[in-house]
Amino acid sequence: MFISMEGIDGAGKGTQAVLLLKAILARGQKAVLTREPGGTSLGRKLRQLLLSPEFPDETLEPMTELLLVLADRAQHVSKYIQPILAQGITVICDRYSDSTFAYQFWGRSAIHFSDLQDINHILNFPIPNLTFLLDLPVEIANARIKEKNHLETDLSFQHRARMGYLELANPYEKRMGAPFHQRIYTIDATLPIEEQHQYIISIYDKYIKEQ
Amino acid sequence: MFISMEGIDGAGKGTQAVLLLKAILARGQKAVLTREPGGTSLGRKLRQLLLSPEFPDETLEPMTELLLVLADRAQHVSKYIQPILAQGITVICDRYSDSTFAYQFWGRSAIHFSDLQDINHILNFPIPNLTFLLDLPVEIANARIKEKNHLETDLSFQHRARMGYLELANPYEKRMGAPFHQRIYTIDATLPIEEQHQYIISIYDKYIKEQ
Repeated sequence: MFISMEGIDGAGKGTQAVLLLKAILARGQKAVLTREPGGTSLGRKLRQLLLSPEFPDETLEPMTELLLVLADRAQHVSKYIQPILAQGITVICDRYSDSTFAYQFWGRSAIHFSDLQDINHILNFPIPNLTFLLDLPVEIANARIKEKNHLETDLSFQHRARMGYLELANPYEKRMGAPFHQRIYTIDATLPIEEQHQYIISIYDKYIKEQ
Repeated sequence: MFISMEGIDGAGKGTQAVLLLKAILARGQKAVLTREPGGTSLGRKLRQLLLSPEFPDETLEPMTELLLVLADRAQHVSKYIQPILAQGITVICDRYSDSTFAYQFWGRSAIHFSDLQDINHILNFPIPNLTFLLDLPVEIANARIKEKNHLETDLSFQHRARMGYLELANPYEKRMGAPFHQRIYTIDATLPIEEQHQYIISIYDKYIKEQ
């Protein structure tokens, strides 16, 4: 089973991912936690490039950033996610393909929506069974973040990413041409941590039961 | 004017690129020389990753390598090639998009040919006016190379890349669906350096005259 955690920085993805991992393990099931970018050795080098606030003497072009994110994912999927899933172990991934739509498409306008869908189709990355979108206002998320980096310093950029996420998760949004909303569950990330977790684990348990 | 130099490692691309640059400058025309991967600050970091013979604890997946090459190109095109071309200055690029077909498609089978064409179409990189393919047998090229790296240690890999280049340049090859051969001039790289150069500059002069 493949689960992704999504949301803007400061939404609490890391916290909820750990709580979910512990709850799955407590049920006697096998699971691991990973993240993007940076889920592999190569990915950690790419993550440094992507998050570096003062890249030596040039800014990253939006399309360059997109391709680096996809390179990180290609390595992560082949070297880590797919082999683990093949062993019947659940993978929880902190950020995955919806982040690319939220940040590189809505946030940076690096590419047309349909072109990003075409590239994803060519790259053939596995699609999560469940995605938890931790949603909260940008101002609250930003206040939670101590350390800034170039992916998260721009409030209007974060706002576009948040709106993008909500659009992906919206069952009445027809533009996508793909049923994103059928696997994306939106969680109010302003609620108490434990309350969010109970909602997440209840969806997980329901999904397992229905298989 | 945009010129690319192609061929396997050891073919003498660098030497011919410098001779061509000097000849163009001697004609009172403006030109610069650049290369891929590594034409930008980001690109030089990516080049290190691509050429590293002992990447820490994992090999690069073929698709990862392809996406890193494309990321390098996206940055190079936006930050360097396009601004220079826009000033009316000729750009000579040591390796460009044909390398990606030769190495990532023919060499590594990272992707289907048509999918690579589709991605190139989406990325919308400029197409060279002229491409010089320096061709020679892999064994001769290899004997010329002193320092090895992971892109060039495998003879059969180099051989597939060479055959791929020749296929791109072949006017009777219909598979491509794109007129690669109309811009690719194949040069026998076993000939004396000056003889190769005279052929290259004669094609350049003819192209300029016809504009």
